[in-house]
Amino acid sequence: MTYRAPVKDMLFCMKELAGIDQLTQIPGFEDAGYDTAAAVLEECAKFNEGVVAPLNWEGDKYPSSFHDGKVTTTPGFKQAFQQFGEGGWQGLQHPVDFGGQGLPKTIGAACAEVLHSANLSFALCPLLTDGAIEALLTAGSDEQKATYLPKMISGEWTGTMNLTEPQAGSDLAAVRTRAEPQPDGTYKIFGTKIFITYGEHDMAENIVHLVLARVQGAPEGVKGISLFIVPKFLLDANGNPGTRNDAHCVSIEHKLGIKASPTAVLQYGDHGGAIGYLIGQENRGLEYMFIMMNSARFGVGVQGLAVSERAYQKAVQYARDRVQSRPVDGSVKGAAPIIHHPDVRRMLMTMRATAEGCRALAITAAAAYDAAHHHPDAETRAQNQTFYEFMVPLVKGYSTETSLEVTSLAVQVHGGMGFIEETGIAQLYRDAKILTIYEGTTAIQANDLIGRKTSRDGGQSAKAIAGQIELTEADLAARNDPAAQSFAKRLKAAREAFIEVVDFVAGQTKASPNAVFAGSVPYLMLAGNLMAGWQMGRALLAAEDAINEGEEVEFMQAKVATARFYAEHILTRVPGLRDSILEGGESACALPLDAF
Amino acid sequence: MTYRAPVKDMLFCMKELAGIDQLTQIPGFEDAGYDTAAAVLEECAKFNEGVVAPLNWEGDKYPSSFHDGKVTTTPGFKQAFQQFGEGGWQGLQHPVDFGGQGLPKTIGAACAEVLHSANLSFALCPLLTDGAIEALLTAGSDEQKATYLPKMISGEWTGTMNLTEPQAGSDLAAVRTRAEPQPDGTYKIFGTKIFITYGEHDMAENIVHLVLARVQGAPEGVKGISLFIVPKFLLDANGNPGTRNDAHCVSIEHKLGIKASPTAVLQYGDHGGAIGYLIGQENRGLEYMFIMMNSARFGVGVQGLAVSERAYQKAVQYARDRVQSRPVDGSVKGAAPIIHHPDVRRMLMTMRATAEGCRALAITAAAAYDAAHHHPDAETRAQNQTFYEFMVPLVKGYSTETSLEVTSLAVQVHGGMGFIEETGIAQLYRDAKILTIYEGTTAIQANDLIGRKTSRDGGQSAKAIAGQIELTEADLAARNDPAAQSFAKRLKAAREAFIEVVDFVAGQTKASPNAVFAGSVPYLMLAGNLMAGWQMGRALLAAEDAINEGEEVEFMQAKVATARFYAEHILTRVPGLRDSILEGGESACALPLDAF
Repeated sequence: MTYRAPVKDMLFCMKELAGIDQLTQIPGFEDAGYDTAAAVLEECAKFNEGVVAPLNWEGDKYPSSFHDGKVTTTPGFKQAFQQFGEGGWQGLQHPVDFGGQGLPKTIGAACAEVLHSANLSFALCPLLTDGAIEALLTAGSDEQKATYLPKMISGEWTGTMNLTEPQAGSDLAAVRTRAEPQPDGTYKIFGTKIFITYGEHDMAENIVHLVLARVQGAPEGVKGISLFIVPKFLLDANGNPGTRNDAHCVSIEHKLGIKASPTAVLQYGDHGGAIGYLIGQENRGLEYMFIMMNSARFGVGVQGLAVSERAYQKAVQYARDRVQSRPVDGSVKGAAPIIHHPDVRRMLMTMRATAEGCRALAITAAAAYDAAHHHPDAETRAQNQTFYEFMVPLVKGYSTETSLEVTSLAVQVHGGMGFIEETGIAQLYRDAKILTIYEGTTAIQANDLIGRKTSRDGGQSAKAIAGQIELTEADLAARNDPAAQSFAKRLKAAREAFIEVVDFVAGQTKASPNAVFAGSVPYLMLAGNLMAGWQMGRALLAAEDAINEGEEVEFMQAKVATARFYAEHILTRVPGLRDSILEGGESACALPLDAF
Repeated sequence: MTYRAPVKDMLFCMKELAGIDQLTQIPGFEDAGYDTAAAVLEECAKFNEGVVAPLNWEGDKYPSSFHDGKVTTTPGFKQAFQQFGEGGWQGLQHPVDFGGQGLPKTIGAACAEVLHSANLSFALCPLLTDGAIEALLTAGSDEQKATYLPKMISGEWTGTMNLTEPQAGSDLAAVRTRAEPQPDGTYKIFGTKIFITYGEHDMAENIVHLVLARVQGAPEGVKGISLFIVPKFLLDANGNPGTRNDAHCVSIEHKLGIKASPTAVLQYGDHGGAIGYLIGQENRGLEYMFIMMNSARFGVGVQGLAVSERAYQKAVQYARDRVQSRPVDGSVKGAAPIIHHPDVRRMLMTMRATAEGCRALAITAAAAYDAAHHHPDAETRAQNQTFYEFMVPLVKGYSTETSLEVTSLAVQVHGGMGFIEETGIAQLYRDAKILTIYEGTTAIQANDLIGRKTSRDGGQSAKAIAGQIELTEADLAARNDPAAQSFAKRLKAAREAFIEVVDFVAGQTKASPNAVFAGSVPYLMLAGNLMAGWQMGRALLAAEDAINEGEEVEFMQAKVATARFYAEHILTRVPGLRDSILEGGESACALPLDAF
């Protein structure tokens, strides 16, 4: 099962949609233009295609295992992770001051896609470490930064996020893990955390657990949660791992997918108390954790796109090889490779258009993040921040929900062979299912979209984006070719549907919360579909321009064809979602509880 | 993981939608009315809930295993299958003359749902045996019938369908297994068959393989295929299993799901030739096999509905138990069971409405089968046959495709626990994935829908059904309540979309085969959605009538609420499918093959 990083499409998105060369005008990113992106992606592709991707199926066959408090990862993972760290990949987006490469997220998002396509299970360790690094960068003290960041950025140590407890999943108000202040300024941590990704493993010499806990006497609910650093090994005077901390893995889960990634139950304080160090101020833990979580949510969205891309590639390969039946148009006399059959083409195009749309969505969102964080102009920063924040739940929710459809289609293309584990495509179907669940289920993303991103400002940000979409529509409508015309028609219908739903959400959330929230996930799917579609519309325009100038004509023609497919087969789902949201709120909640 | 057979809803479908009491006017079914159905279903529920359902998770944990040519099934399966046979369940729909109970398919379909909900893997053995029995009943000689049917109907022997070979999956023209005529009138069979469900097992004393093979000198392609009985053990003079035949299992597959069901590779003739007995005439094998296959296709559709129902029940149970977060409408002060959250309600309602719609579709189709086979009036028989044949690809395709969505939602309702195998819901997600593949992939069903069921008669049968739907619309529109009004509106939009698509398919299949077949699966999903929706509309009318008469008011109110949800959340998908079919044919096939 080979994998080739779609470098060309990534560079297309960066150049034509995310305007990467404008990035070089931002202080600190002077060298981060197209050529840098191309060079980094080439290296990234080489490493992941050669080292990480071949371990994907191994990880499914030989999952992480637990014995006597220790987790042994899949053979090869430890060596690959060492190479990953040495190659500087963990530090890609992190500050040069702590040993990172200081590259923009625009490039980082593309590299992350390649890593996740190569191996979702493996890539989770860096993904979580990235989140822990970002939390420390934002909220850690100078001493904490100096102590932990260089080792984490070099890949010598890894990070974890400890939120979930058996009674506290989506609802962090229910966290019970407690922190007892000690005279020396440290805390003793007691409690059980579950679903801790890479909570224990053998790939690094230390693990920096970031743990949500309640200090005694803290307020009830989410306003009484603090965040702590709890290293697996306490550091000695030289900053090296020394005494074992009282944070122990007691088991790992037996899961549907991502089997190589150990999902740990961690027990804190069973032997006197785990030593923890407060990050920032007491009771502001949730705020800090959200930094991690937002980073991780975007990352999980990229995982969705990544698994879709890999499933697409594998399905194409099978469809080229498998010979079965004559084409309906008589274009081949005898039995032909199944890629000749229109329904197989429709499935492959659905997969391709979805992956390309989600990639365009992620890379343009990442560019907004870079501008929001680094642009010299405050107004530009604020606009980009608003745009990015609107996109995060869509990148997370839409790219992962569609990855379920894409991996299912990939199994379908394989026919009976798809159901046989050795074929390898079923693994992607199993792996993908976690993506709509962890780092906030799709419903949690949809709540965020409704509450913080739409209702709070009365739908203003949403409508500002709709205004930009309208400009793209006008550009498309002004072209005379059928692809652009067809796209303009579908984009218009989708944008108008979006605006109706935004008005409904902004207007009714308080008056009819059940009706609005019953439509929350459909709204997320509608908005994600539209935003990815909008980027595909922009891509179509850019590709047509390039064709007129004779640049990369074959690639650009394929982009036009794929964009048109998106409009005619995927954007077409939007008006139906609108109808369900606007008219179906009551029926979704009408059945009495005891009638289920 | 408990399961309760939805007997009440089944009886509702039989009485209000399938008119079971009219069945008693058909010769042979005089006693097969409502009371019989109720009594049979009660027994069926008791047996499957108590004996078969508890083995479902066991089968996933302890799959069938292969050693030294023998397959050992999951502990408990053999005993359960013996009870199944002794209880008369294998013979439910088969002729009294051969030991069956001679009940109509209307009742049989409901019983099959219960069996499949209880345990998909277990139920596959009877499903395949049913198909073999039907093929023998139609095409076997009197001697063959007398020899094999009583033992198969009693559950002492089981049956298999041997179609697939490595190079011949969807395309049976490529079958290479050969049959050499012997002087005594028998044949020697040589070849390899793959994906043979229950091709080897320890649950019965003999296995009756029905095998497609080519007699030497037969025409190329599907017109040169014959069908043979190849028993695992040849029969002695008393008709008991004697000498072992040269048909051997060489391995079983390691699969994504339905792990308890052994999927065998069978080797015929490696030791001199397997003895086979021709069924009917040479070169008519495909025709006979279609009898089996049509029976099995309907059965697999029922599997889809069945796994959806079980997933729904399990998700409801979890949603009642799991406490997390406050409801958005403030109806509960603190954290509440998640069934209070609107998005969870939407997911549960989607699952429920899909299962009820597919059940109504299957049971009404089964009633048409009964009338088509047994009604005294030839015209009535013919009409019902046409109706049934139109419905078979929809029952198969729509009920299985939607089972992927339903089982995925069921995992989603479970949150992080859904991804843990011990929770048990992931099994249903894995199991369901085979349903859109075996007995003809969804694309194969869609080809059947386009070719034999729509184009061949110029869309006449399809439009006749649309005419019936229009009558239901008028009945709904005549009611003054919002549920009926909303339903009428959505049903009308869906029916009109269906007619547009039927015109496109009937008119363009020859001129633009690629464009039409690119829309084949969307057409199947559109038609399935509409037909299940139509039955839900009829159900709504019947339920409102019952409410007016004070009958089973709570049940009937739930039916109205579920039907309305179907209209507003599921029928709403239809117009978008129409748009993709009518306008997206070109873009689906536009990308050059080497651009993928």
